[in-house]
Amino acid sequence: MDPVRRELRDAGLFARDGWIEQVGPTAELPSAADEVLDLRDHIVLPGLVNTHHHLYQTLTRAVPAAQDAGLFSWLKTLYPIWARMRPQDIHTSTALGLAELALSGCTTASDHLYIFPNGCRLDDEIEAAGKVGLRFHASRGSMSLGESQGGLPPDSVVEQPQAILSDTLRLIEAHHDARPGSMLRIVVAPCSPFSVTPDLMRESAALARAHHLHLHTHLAETLDEDAFCREQFGHRPLAYAEELDWSGPDVWFAHAVHIDADEVGRMARAGIGVAHCPTSNMRLASGIAPVRRYRAAGVNVGLGVDGSASNDSSHLLAEVRQAMLLSRLGQRLRRRSTTSLGC
Amino acid sequence: MDPVRRELRDAGLFARDGWIEQVGPTAELPSAADEVLDLRDHIVLPGLVNTHHHLYQTLTRAVPAAQDAGLFSWLKTLYPIWARMRPQDIHTSTALGLAELALSGCTTASDHLYIFPNGCRLDDEIEAAGKVGLRFHASRGSMSLGESQGGLPPDSVVEQPQAILSDTLRLIEAHHDARPGSMLRIVVAPCSPFSVTPDLMRESAALARAHHLHLHTHLAETLDEDAFCREQFGHRPLAYAEELDWSGPDVWFAHAVHIDADEVGRMARAGIGVAHCPTSNMRLASGIAPVRRYRAAGVNVGLGVDGSASNDSSHLLAEVRQAMLLSRLGQRLRRRSTTSLGC
Repeated sequence: MDPVRRELRDAGLFARDGWIEQVGPTAELPSAADEVLDLRDHIVLPGLVNTHHHLYQTLTRAVPAAQDAGLFSWLKTLYPIWARMRPQDIHTSTALGLAELALSGCTTASDHLYIFPNGCRLDDEIEAAGKVGLRFHASRGSMSLGESQGGLPPDSVVEQPQAILSDTLRLIEAHHDARPGSMLRIVVAPCSPFSVTPDLMRESAALARAHHLHLHTHLAETLDEDAFCREQFGHRPLAYAEELDWSGPDVWFAHAVHIDADEVGRMARAGIGVAHCPTSNMRLASGIAPVRRYRAAGVNVGLGVDGSASNDSSHLLAEVRQAMLLSRLGQRLRRRSTTSLGC
Repeated sequence: MDPVRRELRDAGLFARDGWIEQVGPTAELPSAADEVLDLRDHIVLPGLVNTHHHLYQTLTRAVPAAQDAGLFSWLKTLYPIWARMRPQDIHTSTALGLAELALSGCTTASDHLYIFPNGCRLDDEIEAAGKVGLRFHASRGSMSLGESQGGLPPDSVVEQPQAILSDTLRLIEAHHDARPGSMLRIVVAPCSPFSVTPDLMRESAALARAHHLHLHTHLAETLDEDAFCREQFGHRPLAYAEELDWSGPDVWFAHAVHIDADEVGRMARAGIGVAHCPTSNMRLASGIAPVRRYRAAGVNVGLGVDGSASNDSSHLLAEVRQAMLLSRLGQRLRRRSTTSLGC
């Protein structure tokens, strides 16, 4: 496949120092190289990019009590289990999830870790990612709004805002590599409107921009979140994010399911990206993201397998297919009322 | 797993002459047998049953022109391709599809072949199924309502009703084995309301009942079919079927997506079964079948991978998962209007 998405036959690529310099008919490529791979009868795809994951969940698949639950009750069931994770669990689950991604065509993975019990650190997954060898964007997630403050997570799993910001700064200095071709970047990623204070959202954006980092969070995933934002903050989720400086080409949201036509336009104009997670959105009965509207408006949409607690696997190529199937169904649902669908 | 669906640990089964006689703790099973399989650290599942398929489609996967189409235009694109099939193609595609089913846990497969170009016969797939070794229910499908009579398929691929009925009778006499444990049964299966005349539907039902065979057809798959039935026959699909004697515990319908609450009740009272094909229903943008309503009303629901032209694979265990995911999403859609879903 070339840059204008044509499928090429009897073609190949020429790479030097980790960079693809030429893609085209084999006859037009250099005839010699340090290493020549004869891949006749193979298909070479561009490396797939996974834009949303929680690799720490790889060890908490198919927990029985979370199998017939929406997002909020699913989280309430899993928080106490996740609170028992140790650094070695983060390491193991990251290595396993990234291996699954690699086997399904992924070469660049973004991950979102936002719970740090028992001495767990983002460094634990960064170390595992280095061993597996995928290009890695490690998001320093966070939760600061515990139950006692009106948030969803138990107080025992939230952190102090100052500790979050200083650990994020430490990680940037220790790991972030901004150079082209970098194998490791740090992303600043407070978890969600219902688990982070507005102040931390705003300060996280400022910290990220001071260091030219990307910003990531969950947004507009479920109607419960939509109701939470309107009740707590007087805004729908996107307006809430915009008010806290979470708008721009350095921001991408996970899910973005409950976004109306006007909001799609605002996201397109601001350059905000979306991590579309079709299987997870089915699994948690969240809804169907307006992907065709996003694409028509020029919003960048990537795919995410999401964490294994809401997907059961990290198969990125299967997620491509699920995105197609869900989009086909969504077209149908847009045309008629649900009553006439028999669903 | 035992008959009341309990998962048993340290358990096994005892089989004699192809029949499972005991399922339970290993200690309670006979200690000796002609052949003992030590499956410790394995999970033994009941054999899965695939209730709807068109194995001849295994060689027509992902035809580009049929990738963004609803059922009717998808069929119109594929009929001319299917019209070029030869007996060897039926044999190859059947063997391939059944092997995929076997690898994904299936031990009993039903198939629906309704197009017989170039000397193709149901015997071609029966022969292939015998080699693969799955328990097989071969449906003698049919199409008799060509374009010139107001049907959907081109006249070149429909048959004369009398030829259909006499070939069905030939197949029953040649292949049908009604004994318990039978490896091969014949099913009578006119294709769909838009490709078969009402007379053939009625005569097929009579023929099946005279020989104590099951009856199968596509019903209520899409809103296009719903409109076709109301326009051509003055009934919704289920009422049309009922009027032609297609009601009873010997009948199962593929898809049954657009079925309202009253119709669910009628199907339950009649003992009609459903072959639920979630991936195909997404792929063709057909809708979401009311599976939870069926189950609540006592309608028997089986799963079907459907033909590979609308699914891309015959992975029955993946279809189990897709049924769960689509049902979760369906719950969501039932609760709110589509507008609030962003889809």
